[in-house]
Amino acid sequence: MAGPLVLYAGDAAEWPVYRAALNDALEARGVRARLVNRTEAPEKVDYIVYAPSSGLSDFTPFTGLKAVLSLWAGVEKIQNNPTLQVPLARMVDPGMSAGMAEYVLGHVMRHHLGMDADILNRTGPWRNRPAPPLAKDRPVGILGLGALGSAAAERLVAQGFPISGWARTQKDLPGIACHSGADGLQDVLSRAQILVLLLPLTGETENILNAETLAMLPRGAVVINPGRGPLIDDEALLDALDSGQLSHATLDVFRTEPLPDDHPFWAHPRVTVTPHIAPETRPQTAAETIAENIRRGEAGEPFLHLVDRQRGY
Amino acid sequence: MAGPLVLYAGDAAEWPVYRAALNDALEARGVRARLVNRTEAPEKVDYIVYAPSSGLSDFTPFTGLKAVLSLWAGVEKIQNNPTLQVPLARMVDPGMSAGMAEYVLGHVMRHHLGMDADILNRTGPWRNRPAPPLAKDRPVGILGLGALGSAAAERLVAQGFPISGWARTQKDLPGIACHSGADGLQDVLSRAQILVLLLPLTGETENILNAETLAMLPRGAVVINPGRGPLIDDEALLDALDSGQLSHATLDVFRTEPLPDDHPFWAHPRVTVTPHIAPETRPQTAAETIAENIRRGEAGEPFLHLVDRQRGY
Repeated sequence: MAGPLVLYAGDAAEWPVYRAALNDALEARGVRARLVNRTEAPEKVDYIVYAPSSGLSDFTPFTGLKAVLSLWAGVEKIQNNPTLQVPLARMVDPGMSAGMAEYVLGHVMRHHLGMDADILNRTGPWRNRPAPPLAKDRPVGILGLGALGSAAAERLVAQGFPISGWARTQKDLPGIACHSGADGLQDVLSRAQILVLLLPLTGETENILNAETLAMLPRGAVVINPGRGPLIDDEALLDALDSGQLSHATLDVFRTEPLPDDHPFWAHPRVTVTPHIAPETRPQTAAETIAENIRRGEAGEPFLHLVDRQRGY
Repeated sequence: MAGPLVLYAGDAAEWPVYRAALNDALEARGVRARLVNRTEAPEKVDYIVYAPSSGLSDFTPFTGLKAVLSLWAGVEKIQNNPTLQVPLARMVDPGMSAGMAEYVLGHVMRHHLGMDADILNRTGPWRNRPAPPLAKDRPVGILGLGALGSAAAERLVAQGFPISGWARTQKDLPGIACHSGADGLQDVLSRAQILVLLLPLTGETENILNAETLAMLPRGAVVINPGRGPLIDDEALLDALDSGQLSHATLDVFRTEPLPDDHPFWAHPRVTVTPHIAPETRPQTAAETIAENIRRGEAGEPFLHLVDRQRGY
C-alpha cells in the first residue's frame, strides 16, 4: 500500500533541511510517506506542510487533501483563506517555544539590569549607578498564556520575577497570577514594569496595546513584543515613548517586515528593533510535530493543535 | 547589663540605611546592642562592621574587639592586615548572591542571544540573521563555586545551559560538572563558549586568566568577569580580543576603579565595562548576616563565614 503524499510548501531554502528532518521523524513513527516539494498531481496530495512564504494561497486543486500542517505558530495569514476547507493545524514546536522563552528571558533581564547604559557607553567615562532591584521586586506582565507565553512565563518565574499573565480565557498556571477579561487586562497592565506581548493575532487582539491601554502601565514601563506586529498601535507606542510613559520598546515583529528603512522605529532612540529572531521554528523539533500529525491522520486519530477557525487560532 | 558596642566602619553615605537595618535585625534576634558610627573609646568596641571605604586600617586601639564583620564578600584588602588579630567574617549576603546571579544570567543571555548586534544597530537597516542555538547547546564555564558562583550556576542550570564549574577544592553540586586542579581547569576552559569568573582573589588565583589559559578556550569565546579585577592579565585579554581568540569581554571589576578614562578597555570595541554593579551588598539582607554573627558572638556560638587567613578567603 502506498503511503500518504506530503507536499512541502515552505521556504524553498529550507527544503533540504526539512526533507531530512521530516523523513527521519516519519520513519521513526513507522509512517511510509512520500515527501515532495512539487507535484503535477495536486489531487493526490494528502497533507500540505505549509508556510506563507511558499506563495501558495489557492488550495482548490488539492481535492484529496486531509489537512494543512502549518510550519508557523501564527496562522492569521491562512486561517481565513476560503479555499481551505480541511483541518488546519498550528505549529507547536518545543524548540520554538524554548527559543522564544530564551528571547523573552534575555530581553527582560536586559531591561531589568539596565544593560543598555553600559553596552552603549563604549568609550567611558565610568558612571556609578545604584544597583537595580532584585527580580523578586520587578513585576513583569505577559499578555498571552498559550504554548509560547506560558513557556516564557515559566522561565521568568524560575528567576523570581512576580508574573501576572492575561489570556482570553481564564488559565491556571503554577506561580503565575492569571487574569482574563477587560478588568483582568487592567490589573496586569497596571503593575507591569516590563510587559511582554505573546498573544495570537485575531480581530480581538489587534491594537490591544493602544493609547488607552498604554496609559494603564506604570510610568516608565518597558514593552517587549516578540508576538505579532499588529498587536500594537504603532503611533500610540511612539507617543508613549515620547511622553516618557514608556521608557523603551524592544520589538521583534512588525506590520511590514523587513521593517522599512524610513520607519520611525529605526530613528527612535528608545526603540530596539530585532529582526524577527524570537519565534524561529527549529526544523528538528518542528518535524516531530508535523510527523506526529501525519501519523495521527493515517491512524484515524484526532489531529493535535487544530486551529479553531471561528476563534482565529 | 549593657549590650555589646558595635562600631559601623563602612561607607559614610550608607550609615543611615545600615543603622536602621542593623538595629532591626539585632532587635529581631533579641540582641540589645549599641550601634555607633564613631567612638571616643575604641577599647570598648566589641564588633566592627567593616568596609575598606571607611579608611580604617589600624585595629590596634580596639583592644577589646571580638570580631570584624566585613560588609564586603571580598576580603583581600583586609585579610593580611597585621593589626587585625581577631576573627574576620566575610559577607555572605543572600541579596548580593541573588543580584550577582542576576547579573551573570543577564549577561550570559545577552551574549548567548547576540543582543549587541540589535542594541547597537540603532538606525537600521534590517539584517536577517540565523537563530542562535538553544541554551542546551551553549556550554558555559564558571570559575569559582563558592556562595556567589554556585548561586549563578544554579540560575544557568535552570535555563538549560550545560555548566562546567571549577573550584580550588572538588565540589559536588547538582546539575553542574564540577572540576578542580590544573587538569580540571583545562577541561572547563576547553568547552566554555561563555566563561564567568567568580573566584576569590588570592595568590593562587591572581592572573588565572592569562595568555596560556585564554588559549585553552574555544575560539570566539566570551569572558564575563564580575569577580575580581586581578583575576585577569589585562594585556593578555586585550591580545586575545585582538586576535579573535575572544569575541567579547564584559568586565565589572578592575585593578583600578573607577576604570581610568584612558584605559584601553574603554577604547576596545569588544569590551563592555560595567561600573562594579554586579556584587552589590544589599543592606536589608546584609544586616541579617551581621546581626546573626553578633548574636552568635554574644551567645558563645561559632561565627559564620569566618575567613581562613592562610587560604585568603
